[in-house]
Amino acid sequence: MSKQQNVIIIGAGLCGSLLALRMGQRGYRVSVFEMRPDLRKVDISAGRSINLAFSDRGNKAMKLVGLEDKAQALSIPMHGRMIHDKEGNTFQSNYSGRTHEYINSISRGDLNSLLLNEAERHENVNIYFNKKCKSVDFENTSALFKDYETKLEFTENADIIIATDGAGSALRKSYFLGKKFLFSFSQDYLSHGYKELSILPTKSGDYKTHKNALHIWPRGDFMLIALPNLDGSFTVTLFLSYSEGEYNFDNLTTPERVETFFHKEFPDALELMPNLTQDFFENPTAALGTVKCSPWHYKGNTLLMGDAAHAIVPFYGQGMNAAFEDVVEFDAILDDHEGDWQTVFERYENHRKKDTDAIADLALDNFLEMRDHVAHPVFQEKRKIEMALEKEFPTKYSSKYSLVTFNENIGYQEAMLKGRAQDKAILSLLKNQSITPSENLNSILKKVQQETENILNLNSAF
Amino acid sequence: MSKQQNVIIIGAGLCGSLLALRMGQRGYRVSVFEMRPDLRKVDISAGRSINLAFSDRGNKAMKLVGLEDKAQALSIPMHGRMIHDKEGNTFQSNYSGRTHEYINSISRGDLNSLLLNEAERHENVNIYFNKKCKSVDFENTSALFKDYETKLEFTENADIIIATDGAGSALRKSYFLGKKFLFSFSQDYLSHGYKELSILPTKSGDYKTHKNALHIWPRGDFMLIALPNLDGSFTVTLFLSYSEGEYNFDNLTTPERVETFFHKEFPDALELMPNLTQDFFENPTAALGTVKCSPWHYKGNTLLMGDAAHAIVPFYGQGMNAAFEDVVEFDAILDDHEGDWQTVFERYENHRKKDTDAIADLALDNFLEMRDHVAHPVFQEKRKIEMALEKEFPTKYSSKYSLVTFNENIGYQEAMLKGRAQDKAILSLLKNQSITPSENLNSILKKVQQETENILNLNSAF
Repeated sequence: MSKQQNVIIIGAGLCGSLLALRMGQRGYRVSVFEMRPDLRKVDISAGRSINLAFSDRGNKAMKLVGLEDKAQALSIPMHGRMIHDKEGNTFQSNYSGRTHEYINSISRGDLNSLLLNEAERHENVNIYFNKKCKSVDFENTSALFKDYETKLEFTENADIIIATDGAGSALRKSYFLGKKFLFSFSQDYLSHGYKELSILPTKSGDYKTHKNALHIWPRGDFMLIALPNLDGSFTVTLFLSYSEGEYNFDNLTTPERVETFFHKEFPDALELMPNLTQDFFENPTAALGTVKCSPWHYKGNTLLMGDAAHAIVPFYGQGMNAAFEDVVEFDAILDDHEGDWQTVFERYENHRKKDTDAIADLALDNFLEMRDHVAHPVFQEKRKIEMALEKEFPTKYSSKYSLVTFNENIGYQEAMLKGRAQDKAILSLLKNQSITPSENLNSILKKVQQETENILNLNSAF
Repeated sequence: MSKQQNVIIIGAGLCGSLLALRMGQRGYRVSVFEMRPDLRKVDISAGRSINLAFSDRGNKAMKLVGLEDKAQALSIPMHGRMIHDKEGNTFQSNYSGRTHEYINSISRGDLNSLLLNEAERHENVNIYFNKKCKSVDFENTSALFKDYETKLEFTENADIIIATDGAGSALRKSYFLGKKFLFSFSQDYLSHGYKELSILPTKSGDYKTHKNALHIWPRGDFMLIALPNLDGSFTVTLFLSYSEGEYNFDNLTTPERVETFFHKEFPDALELMPNLTQDFFENPTAALGTVKCSPWHYKGNTLLMGDAAHAIVPFYGQGMNAAFEDVVEFDAILDDHEGDWQTVFERYENHRKKDTDAIADLALDNFLEMRDHVAHPVFQEKRKIEMALEKEFPTKYSSKYSLVTFNENIGYQEAMLKGRAQDKAILSLLKNQSITPSENLNSILKKVQQETENILNLNSAF
């Protein structure tokens, strides 16, 4: 087997550009085809989230390709959730009782540019923009593209094709429509959509509110969040039902009504957003969906990766981290089976799918948690206990959030099963008054561990 | 609003012909278009299951249209599972501790013919065969058909169109490809397929094995089942992986290998099946899939019903019963909102979807239960306790199976939540030796109820 093999990557987003870089480092001849213009030259942010939560699983990938420091330079630490109530009161709920565990706000565009620049430093990597994949002939390992500049169509062949072309993947569509094999597939939309807004910097370029937190205005059926950017601004996102409730995207049709809604629900945010109604009517409303499918690969010819294989809702801040972890896991399997693509693809999917299914489900859970539960007293009591346990027993206790976000050496599935059982255990113990927040922490830890064990055993009975 | 409204029904299978009959009884002008030939004139059984398990939810629909007696005349009671081990030993596990609770084997063709005949007795109902629906214009409430006889295409308009055209529904495909609204959709295939075989009658026309049972040969990763037919034969179905395990559909390629497999795994069945290898190589191997989607309707124009909206795997014997129950539920909502199709469709989906989602999940659960768990000692102990409870406390206890199959006045979702909690409760109590089979039944009932309550509460914490 020769490293002179040709690899086509469809899509030069975060996952595709990281994969191109890694495959370039491994010596493959890599051709990347991206339908959009080069984001280093043209502003094409419209419709996609501007900043992202970057955490330990994503960072593991940066370490793999030697970019940890450069990624860190783009990152703004967020130590916890800053929760805003309707009266404008705030309180912070940290992500972990261990001070070195936090997440980061990072610009999608800056991170993508970094990866594209690093990938292009390799002579064996070429990236072509404005080339849209229309379909993939997975039997013959070739892809049909349309060049948006010349308007001409052309076909490219390779030894393997990996599609990292996102939730609307052309390869996935070819699998689905091809009907050559049993293709399990799901797309599930929430009844909520989202819209991006902004809090601009002060005139002197400072942040208008606390910089190092993920701000949340939880309101039960809807919520607003804000993440900081390097330039002093915040990107604000409104998550709201399309058609249900008193205020929804379908009926927020005038500037007056939008102002009234924000005045009633998010008064302290409104004060920081003189540009609210302009943003609101200029920016698109986008859908929130989950995509799962199987198989990801066809023989040893083609493979889906990143959002193309498993698009998730954004509420755990794990979409990009999961896509980056895909590349890390794929790379590890290449170490063991390089030269046999069918085995590489099979092992990769067998190993990986359970974890991407789990993060999809966790992300849906967190939608409820963020917009609703974080504002409840019993949830806050639970978080307090968990913070205390993490602080007192840093090597013995990790909350579900910590397991998912900061424990990159266990898979998402394991994190989900253990984390959910712990959540149930603490809530049940609090409900039955079997533990109290003032109790000795050692005693609380023992009870939580025992009850977690019971729940896990009950779940595995049959 | 006038009953002179035109209703198009796409598909004259079990759900479509029942719906046509009911809408005909209500006075609508009904046109049914079916892509297959008239099954009363041509044998078209190939590839679809020949007999079905008919139980209380299906029977409720027969009562609604006044066909209970005629359906009963086609039915063969099956009081329980007859389980066959590898040595050919058998033992029967009843479906309920109440003797009036049993399921029935019924011929798909006979039942469909009955419904078609009854529907056609109404002057306002017309059924057209060999007319395949190619697509539906759900904005304009019209459908495009191809006539298989004349080869010509034609378009039909109506006030409403209801698609009962099964798992491969043309309307559902039009929703999916139309991209006019957010359409959540999933198709999930099992890695197992199925193949139909047969046990023919004796020369004198008698049954070769016990008539009034659903026979199961559970073998962990695969299984064989058999249901009786009125003519003395049994329809036998092999459920087996396509590609995994020592024996699978991909590698059962010669008569010798098929004989060897049956000789090793199903020796007592093999003795009754001299026609095995002929059946095996003449009959197709078919896939097993679950389809879910939402929304089912578009405005007040079009609606999916039956398998077109929610195809499920066959392991709970509820596919046809669920489709029939669709018609019962739809009819009840028509009683309240006749004249306003948008409201009828909305209320129907809001009310019904949680239940069809539940039966889809229950059917997947039962795949594991039938092929594997029924053969385990702890499962058999649990069933014995449940039988005793149902017998001793006929109004106080119903197993999950009873709740799903014999309690047509509660929905599938309620049956699932309660039934699963009960299963967990009994298994956990047995595991911890908190109950023993010899214990006083009153005491067992109290403990099971208490533990079930605990589990349901734990599940609803948050």
